[in-house]
Amino acid sequence: MSETTENKEQHLEEINQTEEETVNGAETQEQQKALSPEEQLNAKIAELEAKLQEEENRYLRLRADFDNMRRRSQLDREAAEKYRAQNLLTELLPVIDNLDRALQVEVSSDDAVSLYKGIEMVYKTLIDATKQEGLELIPAEGEAFDPNVHQAVMQESDSEKETGIVLRELQKGYKLKDRVLRPSMVSVNE
Amino acid sequence: MSETTENKEQHLEEINQTEEETVNGAETQEQQKALSPEEQLNAKIAELEAKLQEEENRYLRLRADFDNMRRRSQLDREAAEKYRAQNLLTELLPVIDNLDRALQVEVSSDDAVSLYKGIEMVYKTLIDATKQEGLELIPAEGEAFDPNVHQAVMQESDSEKETGIVLRELQKGYKLKDRVLRPSMVSVNE
Repeated sequence: MSETTENKEQHLEEINQTEEETVNGAETQEQQKALSPEEQLNAKIAELEAKLQEEENRYLRLRADFDNMRRRSQLDREAAEKYRAQNLLTELLPVIDNLDRALQVEVSSDDAVSLYKGIEMVYKTLIDATKQEGLELIPAEGEAFDPNVHQAVMQESDSEKETGIVLRELQKGYKLKDRVLRPSMVSVNE
Repeated sequence: MSETTENKEQHLEEINQTEEETVNGAETQEQQKALSPEEQLNAKIAELEAKLQEEENRYLRLRADFDNMRRRSQLDREAAEKYRAQNLLTELLPVIDNLDRALQVEVSSDDAVSLYKGIEMVYKTLIDATKQEGLELIPAEGEAFDPNVHQAVMQESDSEKETGIVLRELQKGYKLKDRVLRPSMVSVNE
């Protein structure tokens, strides 16, 4: 594009030169001497070489962008894959909690025992399914309190146990692989 | 390309010229005259212009590849996002089935009724969570049999209803958005 413009300019210059020639022969000759045909060609070569260099650099920059994007989109894909079940698992935590609670109630009548056994089986299937997607129960009771995975809601005192130890788990906490979905709610030994 | 070939030929010609120079001075001078400095410069310009053109084409091809990859990876990301919960939802279908079954049993004693109510609540929470991720129950009973979403496991006869109508749903079927996770198992009217 720019070359075409330049050619036009060159052409216009030639026309101007021709006009001037009729007015002042000496000046025109000096202008011609200042840019001989060979020099013009060499200038053109230098210009083309610069453009070629520029074009090569442009290609290399795009190549680098391309590679970066490929790498980034690979990482995005891996992260999306790794945590794909996060939303649903988070929504399932209350389901797990409630089944947990239901199974802590003691039952005695026949129909209740039968229902209880059914629920126990369902609970196991649910836990297995969530484990397969990477859900893990955070260890709490007896562990050293860790603010990254435990939320202390009360302090208790047990002189037989070390200070800073989790005494009771009040609500189970869960991780999805290395991400904490919900910390355990715990009581900590003073 | 043909210009590159030409350049090679030119180069070979030059080598030949050098060899011949030691043999016959006059002939060589005539050949050098055949390719004046100006002509050599013009050849160089033609060569550079060809290279520049090639370089520009290479850039445009890479640009097109880049755009294609960006588009493709966007589509991949959307599909991965759309069906991200597919694995876990598939694993949850037996959980839903078993809760469903448990809730179909009639209970009468106090502890059983209390447990039943708890399970009913859990079931509702579970269905809400899976709905949020795009799980949908496939309509069956009373619908026209559709082999894309229904699996016919038996035929029954009800003269009061149209032929080819689903009479009973034996197991619920589910879709994740537009994807069938499990067809409904149904009986079809003869």
